[in-house]
Amino acid sequence: MNNTIFNKLSPKETKFFPLLEEFAEIIMQVSTLITECVTNYQYDAALELFKKIKEQERRGDRLLADIFEKLNTTFITPFDREDIHNLANTLDDVTDNINSCAKRIVMYHPIKIPESAVKLGRILIDGAEILKKAVKKLATLKKDADTLKEYCNQLHLFENEADDIYESFIIDLFKTETDAVEIIKLKEIMHELEDAADTIEKVGKVIKTIIVKYA
Amino acid sequence: MNNTIFNKLSPKETKFFPLLEEFAEIIMQVSTLITECVTNYQYDAALELFKKIKEQERRGDRLLADIFEKLNTTFITPFDREDIHNLANTLDDVTDNINSCAKRIVMYHPIKIPESAVKLGRILIDGAEILKKAVKKLATLKKDADTLKEYCNQLHLFENEADDIYESFIIDLFKTETDAVEIIKLKEIMHELEDAADTIEKVGKVIKTIIVKYA
Amino acid sequence: MNNTIFNKLSPKETKFFPLLEEFAEIIMQVSTLITECVTNYQYDAALELFKKIKEQERRGDRLLADIFEKLNTTFITPFDREDIHNLANTLDDVTDNINSCAKRIVMYHPIKIPESAVKLGRILIDGAEILKKAVKKLATLKKDADTLKEYCNQLHLFENEADDIYESFIIDLFKTETDAVEIIKLKEIMHELEDAADTIEKVGKVIKTIIVKYA
Repeated sequence: MNNTIFNKLSPKETKFFPLLEEFAEIIMQVSTLITECVTNYQYDAALELFKKIKEQERRGDRLLADIFEKLNTTFITPFDREDIHNLANTLDDVTDNINSCAKRIVMYHPIKIPESAVKLGRILIDGAEILKKAVKKLATLKKDADTLKEYCNQLHLFENEADDIYESFIIDLFKTETDAVEIIKLKEIMHELEDAADTIEKVGKVIKTIIVKYA
Repeated sequence: MNNTIFNKLSPKETKFFPLLEEFAEIIMQVSTLITECVTNYQYDAALELFKKIKEQERRGDRLLADIFEKLNTTFITPFDREDIHNLANTLDDVTDNINSCAKRIVMYHPIKIPESAVKLGRILIDGAEILKKAVKKLATLKKDADTLKEYCNQLHLFENEADDIYESFIIDLFKTETDAVEIIKLKEIMHELEDAADTIEKVGKVIKTIIVKYA
Repeated sequence: MNNTIFNKLSPKETKFFPLLEEFAEIIMQVSTLITECVTNYQYDAALELFKKIKEQERRGDRLLADIFEKLNTTFITPFDREDIHNLANTLDDVTDNINSCAKRIVMYHPIKIPESAVKLGRILIDGAEILKKAVKKLATLKKDADTLKEYCNQLHLFENEADDIYESFIIDLFKTETDAVEIIKLKEIMHELEDAADTIEKVGKVIKTIIVKYA
């Protein structure tokens, strides 16, 4: 830890932005990998894709640890310490949700994966795209507040869409699937995907809070 | 955002109380609606009641957004910013639990709803009544600290009662129900009701923390 | 509440350490009790052990309330208020996880408990041992930062081990168990144990944050 007084007091306004952008990039990668995993699902391919997702999830963990250490040893930050903390944590939660989904597919080995999983995966990719753009605009928050708000609204719409897809899936599952074990498996796998969309929307809410405070 | 210096600096001690009271009122409404829903449960009526609960849940979301914006743009607040933040969030969680319960009834379409759901619903109504009174007393915290503590203790007793009802229900469910799918459905529906009682108690804990700090 | 100005302003640097040490001791006790419960599992013995775990869990609740009150009425604390708050809360979560596990065994009454539950129990005991040592070193944080970091790393290794055991168990459960109701029961019971190991690691993460800030 290079935690000298000099380092503590020198302004580091910009050093968090590239780290947050890297987080958004990780989310794009795991979203793409999980969508590949549920499209024409085959167990052996899913196992390989899970390993790649796991690698990205660990990369996210290291990144989070890096951000926390920088937060704790930096005196001046662009926003309140707790806002960056919250933002990084929520970005990490998205990665965790997607990793959990892939892990459950591998552990549970379901017979098939429903088509609605592909739809949810595509929403995650779209959400990750918006996240990447939004995180990039944080550096110019005051100038780009309106664009940022628009991104947050889009994330909200994606979440509503994901919610509807998940709801229809669950209603259909309980109507048509008679094997309780298969219900347990698919319900949890799909729930993690819906949760990921939910967490992406939460990132939007954290950004909205930052806008209200600093724009 | 009417975020002028003047607005930021003028004392706004009282503007949060009516908003918190409105939240307690929303909780009373959804508690009453969910109790209606599980009493003599019929699917079509449940669907209509879910829509009404959903409306209240959205009203709660807007209220929460309103409180957060006011918190972020107000310089002087009656308590620490984080205490009001925490209180509003926990009140919103109660509404979310009850909305989740209604949604699950609609999505899962269980064959029947157990009598213990009605008992839990009535505890939620009693808890909402106490919440309404408690939130009203926050404005006169110093004078009414003892009454407030008594309310918090009552919420704790309600939670214990809800816990016992849920526990007996689960024991009975696993003893008597042989259909695993029905177990999955009822366990989750009942769990959300128990969780709602738990979250109402949590509101009491947040209030207790506020008492310790400011009374 | 003995909340005079004098009391608020006098330094109380050391009064939180014994309380945190007591928490670590509670975790050791419940870890030992739950391991006893899942070793050669018999329902009547499990019921008695649950009662003892429940007692410890309530002791933890009182301890947490005590810490919070002291935090709210003490002006000077050894670390940031929020760090002790966070540490105590996370220690309490460990106790809650283990209590939840015991409660589920009693409520669900599974036919048998898998051998891997014993393995998880032993990891919890090892983790509790490290927690006790770590909490004791907090009082001499600056001098013992390296030892503390080493403890946190060990907790991380335990969590990885617990994760692997849980994963193998789940894969095996879905392969060999055909009774969906038994799957529901064992999955949840085992998940609480894995969660307890996870929460113990989280305590390590909170301690790591404290090291970065104050060592």
